[in-house]
Parts: sequence; structure tokens; C-alpha cells
Amino acid sequence: MTDFSTLTAPGINDLHPYVPGKPIEELERELGLSGTIKLASNENPLGPSPLGAQAAADVIADINLYPDDSGYRLKKKLADRHGLRSQELVLGAGSSDVIDMVARSFLAPGRNAVFSRYSFAMYPIYTTAAGAQCRVADACPADHATMPYGHDLDAMAELVDGDTRVVFIANPNNPTGTWLTKDRLYAFLQKLRDDVIVVLDEAYTEYVTEAAFPNGVAWLAEFPNLIVTRTFSKIYGLAGLRVGYGMASAPLVDLISRVRHPFNVSMPALAAAEAALEDVEFLRRSRDNNDQGLAQLAAGFQTLGLDYIPSAGNFITVNLRRNAGEIYQKMLENGVIVRPVANYDLPEHLRVTVGAPAENRRFLEVLERVLAP
Amino acid sequence: MTDFSTLTAPGINDLHPYVPGKPIEELERELGLSGTIKLASNENPLGPSPLGAQAAADVIADINLYPDDSGYRLKKKLADRHGLRSQELVLGAGSSDVIDMVARSFLAPGRNAVFSRYSFAMYPIYTTAAGAQCRVADACPADHATMPYGHDLDAMAELVDGDTRVVFIANPNNPTGTWLTKDRLYAFLQKLRDDVIVVLDEAYTEYVTEAAFPNGVAWLAEFPNLIVTRTFSKIYGLAGLRVGYGMASAPLVDLISRVRHPFNVSMPALAAAEAALEDVEFLRRSRDNNDQGLAQLAAGFQTLGLDYIPSAGNFITVNLRRNAGEIYQKMLENGVIVRPVANYDLPEHLRVTVGAPAENRRFLEVLERVLAP
Repeated sequence: MTDFSTLTAPGINDLHPYVPGKPIEELERELGLSGTIKLASNENPLGPSPLGAQAAADVIADINLYPDDSGYRLKKKLADRHGLRSQELVLGAGSSDVIDMVARSFLAPGRNAVFSRYSFAMYPIYTTAAGAQCRVADACPADHATMPYGHDLDAMAELVDGDTRVVFIANPNNPTGTWLTKDRLYAFLQKLRDDVIVVLDEAYTEYVTEAAFPNGVAWLAEFPNLIVTRTFSKIYGLAGLRVGYGMASAPLVDLISRVRHPFNVSMPALAAAEAALEDVEFLRRSRDNNDQGLAQLAAGFQTLGLDYIPSAGNFITVNLRRNAGEIYQKMLENGVIVRPVANYDLPEHLRVTVGAPAENRRFLEVLERVLAP
Repeated sequence: MTDFSTLTAPGINDLHPYVPGKPIEELERELGLSGTIKLASNENPLGPSPLGAQAAADVIADINLYPDDSGYRLKKKLADRHGLRSQELVLGAGSSDVIDMVARSFLAPGRNAVFSRYSFAMYPIYTTAAGAQCRVADACPADHATMPYGHDLDAMAELVDGDTRVVFIANPNNPTGTWLTKDRLYAFLQKLRDDVIVVLDEAYTEYVTEAAFPNGVAWLAEFPNLIVTRTFSKIYGLAGLRVGYGMASAPLVDLISRVRHPFNVSMPALAAAEAALEDVEFLRRSRDNNDQGLAQLAAGFQTLGLDYIPSAGNFITVNLRRNAGEIYQKMLENGVIVRPVANYDLPEHLRVTVGAPAENRRFLEVLERVLAP
């Protein structure tokens, strides 16, 4: 019998698929629990955008029809929102779909992509799936004055060579919550060779209120090699529908759109995203809850004497200074799902999503209990 | 400024993306029409499965959460249905997603895929996107006694060489509606080298009632190189949600699943598919409507003196013996959207989806009018 693993395309045998946060249903099934809380996947604890959810519900009667493959209305709305033209937009089934389109379009055996240690787990996966090499820059050290565990842009620039086609930058970064200032990121873009594509992954950008935080969209006109990605999975609360987008110069959008799957964004997703964009009130509430939750969790960690990485996202990563996998497991048994980040090279940290106040409280209580000697 | 088309991965510059059927909304926007009917995308004219639609609606309140990446419940139900184990199933955002997983996992520059002329337009697209070569077999001739325009399995077998990794077979085939008997297909599988993967695309299988029509699933145990794909986009009426699946030996499923996007099937899609599987009554109604509609359309073509390709699917392809693009355009202006198939190498044919009886009647009336001298 043929061993098909001897016949795969380059890279496939090296792939270790993404490990998602454990779904509540699965945990409860496995451990016979109920009343579990999940703070593992950076989902919006306030639920979906009500306007988005209503719009999704409104199209259910028509789901025998294929979605609009062109995404006409959503792209138009996004273009208006960002001061772009529709042909500068590509829609994805989540922003990771757009990230993969870039990888498929520009990476191949003999080429490489550069990214930072402790960054989004899909960058190495998509790079490897395209048969290309991962060049991983060391991050800022844990005791760095302003950005422990953050992207070291100088180290990343040094790794760019003649075979580099793509640089992935997450801002804010997942799983660290660290972020790059306008000045530093702009300087990096200016210095970089203009035939290297920069994917600026802004999945968490809507949570950030810092004045020095950049909006990558403002740089698109100046850098035709820049692609900015956004998602409706985080602050808009539409993770279950799979919708995100990329913004770039029209020629770049044209090239990466060639590998886009037809109908890659479902009909409810298109409708919900369009409506959620207008849900100003929900975004305000989500941001407020997040600001308060970050403070609540940070205060809790201080009380427990635990270091954490200051975060601009909707999650915070805490240093347990011991095998975090064991603590994760004990918390699971107590009905609290958080995220181990050993696969992100952080075996002693746990990442916790900002929940509603009562969820954050329960998380801190369970953490204290399982850490007790 | 860098011309990024000089930097793409192999195959990307040769890609001509799939051209979907025109959405009603787009046509009405362009031509200022209303009351348009669309018989262009092989959608179910009876709407979505009511059980499926209800299940999708029921999960909308939870769409802030990511879908179950493992597809646990849907895979279990499908496994039970088909007498398989869950690890012999992979879920896709439509069956085309699964087809692409196969292409990405096994095709690459220097390799090739074999398929028939007049077959699903995504086979050459995914093959090319993987940087591989398309080897296209001639179909049975238009005057073939039993299967005009159908797959010529002997011609396909002859094109298989040492670099062939995948053979794509659609049964029934789109856009011709032709189908292969159990005996012929089984003989092909037996003769084929066992290191060549066969993707048997059964998107339309639920419409077929012929006794000699095979169920590919029955052959999975015998052929570890066989992958059977199915979709919820056709008879189940869930095209707008994007969900389909593949079935194969566990080692093959493991390999192709490595390039599966995390969360590739949305939460409403998982829920709807699970419920639609039980919607026996809807499937019966859909099949009845289709049988009657195929007869209605065939009778109409005979009245108009037009040849058509006998179809086992939910569509029928008619020979206009003139430039079909012009007729398509005239029908559009009369508010009837059908499908030109010039991109399938059939420039004088139109493909029409079986609609509800009144839609079929209107289609035939408009066709007669625009064909009139």
C-alpha cells in the first residue's frame, strides 16, 4: 500500500496544524463538567454585535443561494470607511484567510518569510504549507525596558535576505499583547526593500487607544508593498462566521485575490460584517469592558505576585514561572479554559482573554487556588 | 516601483479566477431590473432545508465564539451515515475547499493532475494555483451513443504518467450532467496505479436515482487512494453557508487536513449541515421537483428543436448551435440569468439550473423569444 506521505508537496510533511482553544462543549463532554467559562480564544465576552447578529439572522431564509462572490456591498462600505477604493480590498474567511492568500501567492520552495518569535501561530504554518522557509527573529528580551517579548524590528530587518518575499508583523501582537509605535514601524517600512511584502496584521487594532499606536491604512498609499489585515472575529464578535479583510495597493490585491476561494465569505458573514461596521455602541461597550477587564486582571496578577506582559489587546499573558501546561490542565478541571502558549515558545506563560467582570473574577479565583502550594 | 507579478509563486500568474454565476442583486443593479430569476448556479429552487435553516438561526446568538474546529458532531453524524470513522472525514467550506486541500497537499511544480474536458472549472484553477500542470483528456464526442460530452475514462487513463498525483472525476459531471456507471468507474479505479489519488467529486449525487449509478463511498475500503467529496450546497440548499466534506482513508485524511484552515466551516454552517442531514422530507421534495423540472426542460427543448445533454444533475445543458454568449446576454436583459459555459469549452451551450415549475416555464418562454429570428 502506498505511503502517501512520501508523495506530498514540499512543506506538507513538516506541517503541525494549528491547535485551537478548547471548545467549551468539548471540555464538558470530556470531563463531565458544566458551567464552564472559556477565556481562551480572544472572543468578545459581550456576545456578537447585535446589529451584526440581526443581519445574519435576516439572510438565513436565502442561504440556498451562493453568497455574493464579489462582496460588493461589504467592500464598498469598507472602502468608504478607510478612504480606499473597492479594488484595494480583498475579503477573507477571517483575516487568516487573507494571510494565507499572501503566502500562497508569493511564497514557495527557495523563498522565505520573516517574523518574530512569539507571534501568531499561523505565520509559520502558512509559510511551511507554501514550501517556504521560516526565518524567525528573536523578540525583545523578557527584561526589555519598554517592550518585553515584543517584536524586535532591527532583528527582523537583519533576517531579510534576497529570498525574503514576506514579512509578517502583528500589531498589537498575539499572544503577547505588545505593540509597535507609529515611529518605529514607519521607520522599519521606510528602510525595508520595496519588493518585500509586509503583512501588517491588525486583528486587535480596534481595542487600542494609545496615541502613539499607528493605523497601517494611512501608509498604504506610500508603501505599495504593504498589506494591512483586519478581522470581524475580535471586537465585532463575529468569530463564528469567519470574516476578515485585507487592504493593499490594487495590483497587490489583484495578485493575491487569484488564490481566493470563490464564495470564501458566507452569506451570513457578509451581511453581519456590513451591519456590525455601523455598530458604534457595541464597539464602545466592548472597548470599555476590555479596558476595565485588563485593569482587573492586571490588579489580580499583582495581588498574586505574578508578572504579566502589558497588553494592548483583548487578552493578557501571565508568567507563572513554572510549567504552565500543568496549571492549564488544573484550571480545565475547575471549569476555566485559558490558553497555554507553549506552542508560541512560552511554556511558562498562560494567555487569558479578557472576559466579563464576573468571568475575570472567577478566573483569578481559580488561578489562585490551583497555584496554592 | 516593484512589479509584484514578477515575484509570484509558480502558477499564480497563469491563474484566471473562477467566474461565478451573476448574482440577482448585481444584475438588477446593473440593468435597473426587478423580478429577475436566477437559474445559473445549481442552487436549490425550494430554498434551504428548513431544518438546516432553523439550526443556523438557532446558533446566531453565539457567533461571537469560534466554531468547533474539529467539527466533532457533524463528522460523527456523517461517519454514522456513511459507515465510516470520524478520522476518515474532513470538512470543507464547500467541497471545493476539500478539492483544494488535495491539490495543495499533493500537487507542485513538476507534477500534474488529470481531468476531463468539460469538467468542473475549479480543477484547473486549483491545479494551476499549486504550480502543477493540467493534463486534460478529451471527452466523449458530441455524437457519442451513450454519453455525449461525458468523461472518457480510457483517454484519462492514457494521460496518467509518472508525475501524475491526482485525477479529478466529477460524477455526475458539471456542467454536462453526464455520469459514469458503477462498472466503468470501478474498472478505472482497479486499473489505476495505486499511488495516484482519485478525487471523486459527488456534488450532485443525491439527485441521481439510476440503479447503475455508483456510490463512491462503498469503494473507500478497497481504494486507499480514493477521496470522495460531497457538498451541502446543492440538494441540501445551503450554498450560502459554505459547507462540504471529503471521505478517504485515515492516512490520506490526515495529510490533506494539514492544509485545512482552522475554523474553515462556520458555526451556522456546522449546525445547519448537521440538521439538514436529517431533513428526509426536504430531500424527497427537492428530488421530486428536480425530476419533474428536468422532464419539463427537456420537453421544452424538444419543442424548440434544441439538442441537450441528458443530465443526472439539477441542471441541464442545451446546445444552441450559435454563440451562446449573445443569447445569455439577451436573456439577462429579459431578467433570466442562466450560465454561459464558454469557460468550460462549450461556447454554443448554455447551462440552466432546474428551477421551480414556473421558473422553468419563464426560462423556456424567454429562450424561445430571444431565439426567434
